Amino acid sequence: MSAKDTDANKNYVCDLAQGAKRAGKLLAVSRGEQRSKALTTIAFNLREQADAIIQANKKDLDQGRKAGLSEAMLDRLGLDEERIGKMADSVEEIAQAADPVGQVIEGWTRPNGLVIHKLRVPLGVVAVIYESRPNVTSDAAALALKAGNAVILRGGKEAIHSNEAIVSAIRTGLAETGIPQDAVSFVDKTEHELVNELLKLDSLIDVVIPRGGESLIRAVVENSRIPVIKHYKGVCHVYVDAAAELEMAHQITMNSKVQRPGVCNAAETLLVHADIAEEFLPSVCDELAGAGVELRGCERSRELCRIIKAASEEDWSSEYLMLILNVKIVGTQAEAIEHINRYGSGHTDSIVTENIGAAEEFVAKVDSASVIVNASTRLSDGGVYGLGAEVGISTDKLHARGPMGAADLTTYKYVVYGQGHLRV
Amino acid sequence: MSAKDTDANKNYVCDLAQGAKRAGKLLAVSRGEQRSKALTTIAFNLREQADAIIQANKKDLDQGRKAGLSEAMLDRLGLDEERIGKMADSVEEIAQAADPVGQVIEGWTRPNGLVIHKLRVPLGVVAVIYESRPNVTSDAAALALKAGNAVILRGGKEAIHSNEAIVSAIRTGLAETGIPQDAVSFVDKTEHELVNELLKLDSLIDVVIPRGGESLIRAVVENSRIPVIKHYKGVCHVYVDAAAELEMAHQITMNSKVQRPGVCNAAETLLVHADIAEEFLPSVCDELAGAGVELRGCERSRELCRIIKAASEEDWSSEYLMLILNVKIVGTQAEAIEHINRYGSGHTDSIVTENIGAAEEFVAKVDSASVIVNASTRLSDGGVYGLGAEVGISTDKLHARGPMGAADLTTYKYVVYGQGHLRV
Repeated sequence: MSAKDTDANKNYVCDLAQGAKRAGKLLAVSRGEQRSKALTTIAFNLREQADAIIQANKKDLDQGRKAGLSEAMLDRLGLDEERIGKMADSVEEIAQAADPVGQVIEGWTRPNGLVIHKLRVPLGVVAVIYESRPNVTSDAAALALKAGNAVILRGGKEAIHSNEAIVSAIRTGLAETGIPQDAVSFVDKTEHELVNELLKLDSLIDVVIPRGGESLIRAVVENSRIPVIKHYKGVCHVYVDAAAELEMAHQITMNSKVQRPGVCNAAETLLVHADIAEEFLPSVCDELAGAGVELRGCERSRELCRIIKAASEEDWSSEYLMLILNVKIVGTQAEAIEHINRYGSGHTDSIVTENIGAAEEFVAKVDSASVIVNASTRLSDGGVYGLGAEVGISTDKLHARGPMGAADLTTYKYVVYGQGHLRV
Repeated sequence: MSAKDTDANKNYVCDLAQGAKRAGKLLAVSRGEQRSKALTTIAFNLREQADAIIQANKKDLDQGRKAGLSEAMLDRLGLDEERIGKMADSVEEIAQAADPVGQVIEGWTRPNGLVIHKLRVPLGVVAVIYESRPNVTSDAAALALKAGNAVILRGGKEAIHSNEAIVSAIRTGLAETGIPQDAVSFVDKTEHELVNELLKLDSLIDVVIPRGGESLIRAVVENSRIPVIKHYKGVCHVYVDAAAELEMAHQITMNSKVQRPGVCNAAETLLVHADIAEEFLPSVCDELAGAGVELRGCERSRELCRIIKAASEEDWSSEYLMLILNVKIVGTQAEAIEHINRYGSGHTDSIVTENIGAAEEFVAKVDSASVIVNASTRLSDGGVYGLGAEVGISTDKLHARGPMGAADLTTYKYVVYGQGHLRV
C-alpha cells in the first residue's frame, strides 16, 4: 500500500471518529425520551424500507455465491421480511426499556455531611467490528444509542450493501428526531487497513467490541490502543450430578446441544457423574445420535455406549458450533469442576442436580460468566436474562462479563455535593 | 541481554504468576472472616516488625542519597514509626469493612420463573506496578486480599529493601491465618526486563494497575497483553460561578491548591466567572501568593492582579504537582466547561455556586471521574468517599472510574436458577 493510500485511510477514519465524538457529546446530554423516540422511528423505518434492504441484500448474496461462501454463511447473511421485522422488534424493545443513563447506581452520605453519588453516564464513542450477520448493525446501533453513546460500525465486506441500506434507515430516523446522524457512523469502505487505523484512535473512541471468529478478535486485541471487550468462544458444559432428576437432565442435555448448535451458548461437552451414568447415558446418547449428533467420549463412556467414538485431547477444548458432543464420566463433582475450569472458555456452564450442596459448590467454584442450575446453557442470553437485547456475550472479566446490554455500554462518574467541605 | 538471562527472567515471573494463580483459586473460595483475620494479623505484624522495616528503609535511603535522589523523592521513600502505624491503620480499616465478595449486585426473576443473580466474585490475580512509596505495598496487598484476589507486587527498585521487609510482615500474617503466602507475591529482583515478561502473562494475570508517573503508565499500556486500568495525571479545576458564595469559594480555592500540592487531586487551574472576578480574584490571589503560590493567567486576570504572570498554552494542561496555579476569567459557564473538557484530564473538577441550575449543568457536562459541587478537589479520595482506602484513582472509563476500592477489584458472574428451563 502506498503512503498516499495510508494517509487517505487515516484521514477517512479520523474524520469519521471525530464526527462520532461530536455527536456523542450531544447525545450525552440528550433526554431519554428523545433517544427512545429516535429508536421507535428507526424501527418504523426499518420496516418501511424493508424492500430496499432486501434488494441490497440480494447484491451481497449474489457476490457471496460468486465468491464461494458456504451455505451456512449465506444463511447468516440473508435477509427477508421476517428477519427485518425481528430486527425492528428488537429496536422497539430497546426503545421501551428503562433509560440506563442518569441512574444513581449507589449513593450515600458521609459522616461529615458530604453526599456521594455514583451516577451512570454514557461511555462516549463505542466501535463495533463484526462479521457477516447484518442484524448486528441495528442491534449494536440501538443499544449504543439507548445508552447515550455514538457508535462506529464496521461490518464484514460480504454484507456491505445490506449494512449500508440498514444504516441509511437508521440515519434517516436520527435526522427525523433531531439527533445528529453521526451518532451512527458506518465505515463504508472495505479496505482491511482501515480497521488498524481505527484501532489507533484512543483519544476519540472509548471502547472496541469485536464480534466474530477467534481470529478477528485476536487481531483486534493485538492491534488496538483502545480498550477491547472480548467475546471469545463458548466451550459450554452440562454436568449431570449424581442427584440429578434424570428426565430433566435428559431434556436439558438435548436442548443445550441440539436446539441451535451453531451458536456460542450451545453445549460442547456433557459430563456425567459415574453413579448415574449407567442409568442416564445410554438413552440420552441414543436420542442425541437420533438427532444427528456425533458423540466423542472418554473410555468409560464408550464402554457404556458403543456409538461414542474416542475423544482426543483437543476435542475437550473445541467449540464445534455443529452437531458434535463430547461425553465424559467423572468420579466426583470436583473432577467435573476441574474439567470445566481447565477445558472450558468461561462462557456458560450448567449443573443438573436436586442437591443444594452440589449446586452451591458448582456455583462457587466454576469460574464462568454464567453458571446455571437446572436449566439449558442456551438460556445464557441478553434477551432471556431480561436485558432487552445484547451487544454480545463478554468472556472478559473487566467492565462487563456475560451477556452485555445497554447498561454495559455506560460508565459512571462520582458526583459529590458539599457545603464548603475542605480536606483537613 | 543474553538469551539465557531472558529465559531466566521468563521462568522467574512465570513461576511467580503461577503461584499467585494457585493462591487466587484458594482465596476465591475462602470466607470473608478468614480474610479479615489475615488482614488484622498483617496490621499487627507491621507494627511489631516496624524496627526491621525501618532498618531496611535506611538501606534504601542511604542508597537513594548516593544515587542523588531529590529531597522530595527521599521524603516519599522514607518510613518512620508513625508512617508504618498509618499503614497498619489502613490495613485494619480494610479488615473491618464489609466483604464485597458474594454480594448480589442485582437480582431479579423473569416472567418464566428463571431467577437471575449478578454475584460479585474476585477477579483472580491483580498485578500492581508502582514507584517509590512503600505504603502502596501494604495498601494494594490489603485491598486485593479483601476482594479475594492474589496480588503480584512490583515496586520501584529504590524501595526494594523496604518493600521486602513489608512483604515479609504480610506473608507471615498470611501463614499465621492459613492463607497461602503466594497470595501476596513480590517481584524481588529489580531487572527492568522482568516487567515486560510479566505483562505478557495474560493467561495468569487478570488486570494490571500501574501507579506512578505518566511515562511508567504509558510503558505498561504499550507493552501489556493484560488489561490495564490507567491512573493518569490529575489536571483539576476549581470553577467559581457568578452565583458563588465568595468566602466559600476563597476557602475551597486555597484548600484545593495549597493543602497538599504534590498530589493528583490538587487543583492546577482556577476558573472565575467575569461577573465576580473583580470582587473575588484580587484577595484570593494575594493569599495564594502569600502561601508561596506562583500565579499564571489569562490577560484579563492579569489586568485585575498584577502578580499574575502570563500563562502559556502548555500551562493549561500541565499537572504541576507544586505551588503553581493557572487563573482564567471566563465570560460564561459554557466557556468554563469547554476549558475543563479540553485541557483537563478527566480526574476531578469542582464548581462553587449557590445556583442549582449552574450546578446541574456543570455536573451533566463536565466529563470527569469526580465532579464536585461546593467542596475542595482534594476530597476526591477513596478514604474520603468511604471506600476504606484506594488502589488509586482511575482516569479510565471502563471497569472502574475515580477512586478504586476493594469492590473495584472484583468482577461478577451471572448465577441462573431454573427448574428445568429450556430455550424454545
